[in-house]
Amino acid sequence: MDAYTKTRRTTLKRAHERGSYDRATVHAVLDEALICHVAFLLDGAPAVIPTAHWREGDVLYIHGSSASRAIRALEDGSPASIAVTLTDGLVLARSGYNHSMDYRSVVIYGTARKVADEADKLATLQTFMEKVAPGRWDELRAPNAQEMKATTVLAFDLKEVSAKVRDKGVEDDPEDMDEPVWAGVVPVRRSFGAPEPDPQLATDIALPGYLKDYKGPV
Amino acid sequence: MDAYTKTRRTTLKRAHERGSYDRATVHAVLDEALICHVAFLLDGAPAVIPTAHWREGDVLYIHGSSASRAIRALEDGSPASIAVTLTDGLVLARSGYNHSMDYRSVVIYGTARKVADEADKLATLQTFMEKVAPGRWDELRAPNAQEMKATTVLAFDLKEVSAKVRDKGVEDDPEDMDEPVWAGVVPVRRSFGAPEPDPQLATDIALPGYLKDYKGPV
Repeated sequence: MDAYTKTRRTTLKRAHERGSYDRATVHAVLDEALICHVAFLLDGAPAVIPTAHWREGDVLYIHGSSASRAIRALEDGSPASIAVTLTDGLVLARSGYNHSMDYRSVVIYGTARKVADEADKLATLQTFMEKVAPGRWDELRAPNAQEMKATTVLAFDLKEVSAKVRDKGVEDDPEDMDEPVWAGVVPVRRSFGAPEPDPQLATDIALPGYLKDYKGPV
Repeated sequence: MDAYTKTRRTTLKRAHERGSYDRATVHAVLDEALICHVAFLLDGAPAVIPTAHWREGDVLYIHGSSASRAIRALEDGSPASIAVTLTDGLVLARSGYNHSMDYRSVVIYGTARKVADEADKLATLQTFMEKVAPGRWDELRAPNAQEMKATTVLAFDLKEVSAKVRDKGVEDDPEDMDEPVWAGVVPVRRSFGAPEPDPQLATDIALPGYLKDYKGPV
């Protein structure tokens, strides 16, 4: 199956041409981004927090302190919505009204499953580390029992999910084309600065290969 | 008053030292960021979407199509939560467990007020434009009645709000300090590329000053 099934909630009401249910499009946005925003219910009202995420196949994962309010609410079955957003450009049109942004975003609806099996949990935490710093997992000591217990990993099946993509730059109304104002796109760039070693780092430890010209998710 | 009042929801349960209710800290995060994530209720379940925001004093504003599901739910009084997140660095510690991020974030709880007065609405839309492209508002034709009608502006009073800031880089457990692995921070950079004129832009329209070496919110 190359596309997710539309539901009422994931069917765009406006700008339908921006909607995508294509699996590859959804996965690409999730994989390029480091963080998502997770909404859940806290005493019946929505709450939203940022957190890192990673993906394996049709499952999105997040992790957090087992004591966290958000993790507990999600673990207890709160309905959830997760947004992942990559901004690509400011679109400056010839009217204020047609100003916009180019972006790629994904919205997921669902309920969390706790990853209870210790081996599964360890394996997916390794997947997370591989997303951020490929090869680093093998350089680190293994997590100890207390660390594993203090960390909860939650899985969200990608079932009710859609992407939204705007990439068309300036789109003005015909009657505005002669407005004497600059129009165009200012591209948004995400990148990384040079890695800054911890002041206490031993002098004989070199920068690892995976951090040279680092281009990880951001 | 230089600080917002803590509530149960805005009191951090863990990592208390990261919490801030300082007005200037909250405002700085909101002003540096271009987009927020707004959570609201859709048929009783949380939904979350990205959108641009701006601030005037102790009020955060968003806008959108008057036909949008999110705008309608918020306008109808859905309880809302808004998160604004700036990621500053990947923190690579000497154990997997102590990996983290440096970041600045704000979470707001509240209910929207619709900006109904046309003059107020126009004025705050100008404030939004000034945040993104100072001076551009005066170069654009005024919005027409249909455009104003199609746009809803919502205001959220900053009352129940907190910031969370992590900026301490690597923090390892003492027993891990001799682990033979690189530790440090990879700084996250947000910036803009060179403005790309619309292919149909008249050749006699020069790049405006506010887009030269552009450093707007992102």
